Amino acid sequence: MEKVYNFSAGPAMLPEAVLEKVQGELTNWNGLGTSVMEISHRSKEFLAVVDEAEKNLRELLSIPDNYHVLYAQGGARAQFAAVPMNLLGSNTIADYVDGGYWAASAVKEAKKYCTPNVVTVKTEIDGKRAILPAKDWKLSSDAAFVHFCPNETIDGIEIRDLPETDKPIVADMSSTILSRPIDVSKYGVIYAGAQKNIGPAGITLVIVRDDLLGKAKDFLPNVLNYTTLVDKESMFNTPPTFGWYLAGEVYKWLKEQGGVEAMQKKNEEKAALLYDFIDGSDFYVNNIHADNRSLMNVPFQLVNPELDAKFLAESDALGLKALKGHRDVGGMRASIYNAMSLEGVQALVAFMKDFEAKNA
Amino acid sequence: MEKVYNFSAGPAMLPEAVLEKVQGELTNWNGLGTSVMEISHRSKEFLAVVDEAEKNLRELLSIPDNYHVLYAQGGARAQFAAVPMNLLGSNTIADYVDGGYWAASAVKEAKKYCTPNVVTVKTEIDGKRAILPAKDWKLSSDAAFVHFCPNETIDGIEIRDLPETDKPIVADMSSTILSRPIDVSKYGVIYAGAQKNIGPAGITLVIVRDDLLGKAKDFLPNVLNYTTLVDKESMFNTPPTFGWYLAGEVYKWLKEQGGVEAMQKKNEEKAALLYDFIDGSDFYVNNIHADNRSLMNVPFQLVNPELDAKFLAESDALGLKALKGHRDVGGMRASIYNAMSLEGVQALVAFMKDFEAKNA
Repeated sequence: MEKVYNFSAGPAMLPEAVLEKVQGELTNWNGLGTSVMEISHRSKEFLAVVDEAEKNLRELLSIPDNYHVLYAQGGARAQFAAVPMNLLGSNTIADYVDGGYWAASAVKEAKKYCTPNVVTVKTEIDGKRAILPAKDWKLSSDAAFVHFCPNETIDGIEIRDLPETDKPIVADMSSTILSRPIDVSKYGVIYAGAQKNIGPAGITLVIVRDDLLGKAKDFLPNVLNYTTLVDKESMFNTPPTFGWYLAGEVYKWLKEQGGVEAMQKKNEEKAALLYDFIDGSDFYVNNIHADNRSLMNVPFQLVNPELDAKFLAESDALGLKALKGHRDVGGMRASIYNAMSLEGVQALVAFMKDFEAKNA
Repeated sequence: MEKVYNFSAGPAMLPEAVLEKVQGELTNWNGLGTSVMEISHRSKEFLAVVDEAEKNLRELLSIPDNYHVLYAQGGARAQFAAVPMNLLGSNTIADYVDGGYWAASAVKEAKKYCTPNVVTVKTEIDGKRAILPAKDWKLSSDAAFVHFCPNETIDGIEIRDLPETDKPIVADMSSTILSRPIDVSKYGVIYAGAQKNIGPAGITLVIVRDDLLGKAKDFLPNVLNYTTLVDKESMFNTPPTFGWYLAGEVYKWLKEQGGVEAMQKKNEEKAALLYDFIDGSDFYVNNIHADNRSLMNVPFQLVNPELDAKFLAESDALGLKALKGHRDVGGMRASIYNAMSLEGVQALVAFMKDFEAKNA
């Protein structure tokens, strides 16, 4: 069949080389005669997977020793509840930077546990959606932590600033993790659902600074308690072993690609190609200010939305898949995570050019 | 390589035919040119998987219309917290039938939310571990529900009676689900981690009677709220799509095998073969009374435990994998879920006979 490029926002495409390796060894992993899915999470073979994955992830993100690498379940949505229950202690206030759809969803869940101070950061510059500089964010002086989502998958917005605070910074990095270097030491907690840049849906990475442990609410379920996860090495309940293994394969692949520095370069190149084309066209539009455009999720609209259905049908027929925008935003969205090749974005731009020529 | 038989307690073996199908279509599912892992959970292709899985599961277990079929994350351990938070309402007492390791683990978690009335059911008959008949269980008159675990994976104990109560019965069926017919209408909630009889670790089946919804605690995380899962069709957070798809493949396979009635016959035959051999030997012993022996998990000991290591090394070398007993019980354990063939159990018995002949 023709080459397919999959622009799904998540569950998203995985690196082709990783998927092929996984397929090859799916029924006979490591010479055991069984699938990696069929062995005990406590077997020496699986524990070797765990150790290698941790080593590689720590290397990729330069994770300091005073941070724990944990795996949980329930995605970012579960962390929306887990974060306040783990971190509030006796405090009742936390700052929530309101950058978009996912930040707002975190606020909704947080209201069960605290009084979120919703920090206004959205603005407009030259008619484009933008984010205020961090110096203008009105943080609370008595917040237990500051929560933000540096990349809003649905809005296509990135927040490049960090909150200016001495409180623990908590970041939902579901859609940016591993797409560039980060300074982990600036964060208290980083969490990320796997299904964009790590692996398949169903496993959640949580990186927690050591000093934030031990403050959990009594009613926090143990499966979401960071201290329990530390004590039980993320095996308090049977972990999603296949996802964990696959994440480990993605980490190895990332190292082969040159690490997150190389990914950043490639991701910037891919995003520039697409944004530059959109900006040079009167047929397509992106309504996010250049300073806050996401490198990972590129929403765009046809100036004439009556052509949307035709655009989607024709792109799909050419193997450019899952370009439909989120129902809350409309139009189109191209998610171009680590696993998307430059060729994929080139193919998309070529199609867009052709479609414009035929329909403008 | 030689044929491998995998007796892991969980994550456990999957049906060979299912794994081979999954392998074949791993990189190009449904002709889409992508993996089933890489598509949106809200795509029409994945929703077709969901619908077919639900239809087949309802058929396999004859699930009445007033029950919801839900999928959650976090395994049975998450349900240990979710059950009381969802079902207690204003009540503060629940009955917990104490049949073994997992029942006791559920009690530990429940203590965060209520006063569990721990119901003694363990006894001894003729020097063997056994379970009291249900008429002798001292249930509380004011419990919100009665929790029990019909198959204790670690102890190798089955509780064949149902609690005699008009309260909602909640059953952790992680290791028995789909191994035989059940009368779902007798239960309020049935839950099961997938990694024994359903699919890979990381997805949890929850079957909930309609009238039990709507009583959740305020602080229950939405990812564990049955009402939220019903409202969002188990897609409040991005579900573990690969596990869901694989569960659907297992349901199809079960139907091809003749459904759960046929599985019960096969499972009884497998278990009888192994228990009869053990009972006829002076070299091996199983310390569970015949009435309460698990059809799924068969723990056994060598009368001379000094031979344990030799037994495990030699069985492993022959492709009889993961026979080491749980660290809390010692000795050996053969888990013989649906996916284990009669040939596998025959191979195990042949080895045990041979080992006995050489070492008795």
